[in-house]
Amino acid sequence: MRTIHVIGIGAGDPEQLTLQAVRALRDTDVFFILDKGEVKSDLTGLRRDMLDAHVPEGTYRIVEARDPDRDRSAGGAAYSPAVGDWRSARAGIYARLIAEELGEDETGAFLVWGDPALYDSTLAILEEVLASGTVAFAYDVIPGISSVSSLAARHRTGLNRVARPVQITTGRRLAEGFPDGVDDVVVMLDAHQRFRQYADEDLDIYWGAYLGTPDEILVSGPIGEAAPRIERLRAEARERKGWIMDTYLLRRNPRER
Amino acid sequence: MRTIHVIGIGAGDPEQLTLQAVRALRDTDVFFILDKGEVKSDLTGLRRDMLDAHVPEGTYRIVEARDPDRDRSAGGAAYSPAVGDWRSARAGIYARLIAEELGEDETGAFLVWGDPALYDSTLAILEEVLASGTVAFAYDVIPGISSVSSLAARHRTGLNRVARPVQITTGRRLAEGFPDGVDDVVVMLDAHQRFRQYADEDLDIYWGAYLGTPDEILVSGPIGEAAPRIERLRAEARERKGWIMDTYLLRRNPRER
Ligand SMILES: C[S@@+](CC[C@H](N)C(=O)[O-])C[C@H]1O[C@@H](n2cnc3c(N)ncnc32)[C@H](O)[C@@H]1O
Ligand SMILES: C[S@@+](CC[C@H](N)C(=O)[O-])C[C@H]1O[C@@H](n2cnc3c(N)ncnc32)[C@H](O)[C@@H]1O
Repeated sequence: MRTIHVIGIGAGDPEQLTLQAVRALRDTDVFFILDKGEVKSDLTGLRRDMLDAHVPEGTYRIVEARDPDRDRSAGGAAYSPAVGDWRSARAGIYARLIAEELGEDETGAFLVWGDPALYDSTLAILEEVLASGTVAFAYDVIPGISSVSSLAARHRTGLNRVARPVQITTGRRLAEGFPDGVDDVVVMLDAHQRFRQYADEDLDIYWGAYLGTPDEILVSGPIGEAAPRIERLRAEARERKGWIMDTYLLRRNPRER
Repeated sequence: MRTIHVIGIGAGDPEQLTLQAVRALRDTDVFFILDKGEVKSDLTGLRRDMLDAHVPEGTYRIVEARDPDRDRSAGGAAYSPAVGDWRSARAGIYARLIAEELGEDETGAFLVWGDPALYDSTLAILEEVLASGTVAFAYDVIPGISSVSSLAARHRTGLNRVARPVQITTGRRLAEGFPDGVDDVVVMLDAHQRFRQYADEDLDIYWGAYLGTPDEILVSGPIGEAAPRIERLRAEARERKGWIMDTYLLRRNPRER
């Protein structure tokens, strides 16, 4: 039976690999590396460096494929296949890779950025491949340090306050309003700096870009003061590198209830 | 200057240590191990085993102290100092340990269960020690695999669904109602199996106890079917081991909005 490891590799710092992840890397015959286009080629490079550092040369193969990432820049509906279609397209590619590139008794691996449990589609796609019946395999998941954990560690803060909840959400959701019932909110996948719409509120922000990498930038403080600084640093960095990955925690001073 | 590492050690599986954490362990002169009483002595043992496995003998000292854990069993207000007092009591102990047991140029470490960013007071206490001015030190935080990441990995599921939020909360909060605005909720610190109050709803539960350890138990499924099974397994395990650590994800089938 084919076996697949879905390995969380941390969110930027190669030292964030767990011992369990290193063991799984060494146990793998074929690595599937899905390239999400030029802007992310730095990230593909990081995956290759991890293999070089931890797995003896000649013990594995790498299979690269182009990931049919949704064309976010196109915007118009005509250019963006629906999420469902897009996922099916990916499932087709994954099924083909597994069936054609992985021998019946071999072990393959997908190296997932951060933690496979947060805003990543690999597990859903593998389930779709299995459901399609195209190719059978067993798989397991190795948790990774998420960009959320990394953000909190670098700011030396907790995600929740004592006995209180924390919500993890997206920039798009934050644009619809500050989530109900929570004062601590982590925002991912925000291409539009939605925090700006809360700049007049009694909030602290803990922001981080390129966390764990040599380009890491951290800013924290009352949102009114921090927001303009983040905007400037973010624009500069994005210009310089051509892409940016950032995430942040918004912390509201709790009202008495 | 004294230096302190706050090291996330994962939530049960010693292989969940990151390479960064192992490096920090090896860089440490003095480990502060705070014992939270007999029921948790298995967990203190796991910390010692990690040191044995990764740090050369004779290169470090261990300082153990009794953590003034809140007496949860007492219940009555008379027996439970307010959270603030309790935290100050701990800050006093930490300050003394750092001042007396750590040399001026030495590096100390606190080994924190899971990820220091989730429901852990170490960072707040260190900030309180610094604010008190008793003893000066620099510190950094090394993120760890949380029990939440571990739960998701073992169930091979994401925490969020596509483009949707996830909330992490406590059993006590869940007792007050299902959180607003989210359909995916992770519950920690639940001594009372609060999920039972939602057993009639259209929810799936993904439950895990002693995650990452040889005693691990996993149950998932529609809550109506899974809840009685979890209750039984939980009671048996708790009886057998004398303590239990469990966490779960509640996933509501989203209504159309
Ligand atoms: C598709 S999600 C994947 C998240 C990933 N699975 C994790 O656990 O971090 C990508 C988002 O994660 C965040 N992110 C990932 N890596 C990051 C990093 N090194 N620094 C800052 N944010 C990061 C950003 O918000 C980005 O938009
Ligand atoms: C004080 S909190 C500490 C959480 C920890 N910092 C983390 O990141 O997992 C303790 C709670 O974490 C959860 N927990 C910790 N370790 C666990 C494990 N191995 N299995 C299941 N739940 C666990 C339980 O809900 C427990 O009540």
